[in-house]
Amino acid sequence: MSKNVDNDCIFCKIIAGAIPSKTVYEDEDYKAILDVSPASQGHVIILPKNHAANIFELSDEDARGIMLVAKKIAAAQMKVFGCDGVNVLQNNGEAAGQTVFHLHVHVIPRYKGDTVDIKWKQNPDMELDSIYDKLKNQLQDGSEI
Amino acid sequence: MSKNVDNDCIFCKIIAGAIPSKTVYEDEDYKAILDVSPASQGHVIILPKNHAANIFELSDEDARGIMLVAKKIAAAQMKVFGCDGVNVLQNNGEAAGQTVFHLHVHVIPRYKGDTVDIKWKQNPDMELDSIYDKLKNQLQDGSEI
Repeated sequence: MSKNVDNDCIFCKIIAGAIPSKTVYEDEDYKAILDVSPASQGHVIILPKNHAANIFELSDEDARGIMLVAKKIAAAQMKVFGCDGVNVLQNNGEAAGQTVFHLHVHVIPRYKGDTVDIKWKQNPDMELDSIYDKLKNQLQDGSEI
Repeated sequence: MSKNVDNDCIFCKIIAGAIPSKTVYEDEDYKAILDVSPASQGHVIILPKNHAANIFELSDEDARGIMLVAKKIAAAQMKVFGCDGVNVLQNNGEAAGQTVFHLHVHVIPRYKGDTVDIKWKQNPDMELDSIYDKLKNQLQDGSEI
């Protein structure tokens, strides 16, 4: 089946082979490449071949497959590099750190003492009742489901 | 179908209802709850009902479904909270920031100026050729596929 392509998108150009990449895994629906400016040794990004800017545009079918590819990549990273852990990360929007607006999943091998920084201030005192009601109602009654 | 349960696992107890939680979404295979010590307003974690410590133990079937649930949660967060972005994050191993050893996916609404910190030093000069060969060979020939 033909894929959605955005001709101005750098990841669509990589998927098409118009821009070279180090492709470590490829199937009908996804291409996984080495990040050219990696966070750590073996950092991979998984690109769905269908252009979608973010998770809100991702098809259900492409959502279903992508974590399975991440599982394969993570297992291979663990075996080949003997890393101490793996982060699977998918950013949506500039405020979330997204820099290329073709959805991608980072699979980042972690090594003790590396320079990857993923943390947050916890807010144990945040009032959750109204948040809970709003989100539950949206998920139970909203048009998204 | 009955699910794998680890009787010592706090998330298995939450899934069973033995420990209360604010469940915003549930289906046959997943339960999504508010994080009790959230990174930001509306922070959700998705728990597969089958106990798996990490992505290496996750069944292919559970891997297939979990990003679809994340998509639903993220869309609801965007609609309800008007957030500026969303991170989808799954940590494997202590070195990657995992603290509960029942696989879970964080879906974190992002707001400009919030206290979530997800970044890394980029390494554009890292030599990639040998990394590429090793990982590609493992993914093409290894038993993981």
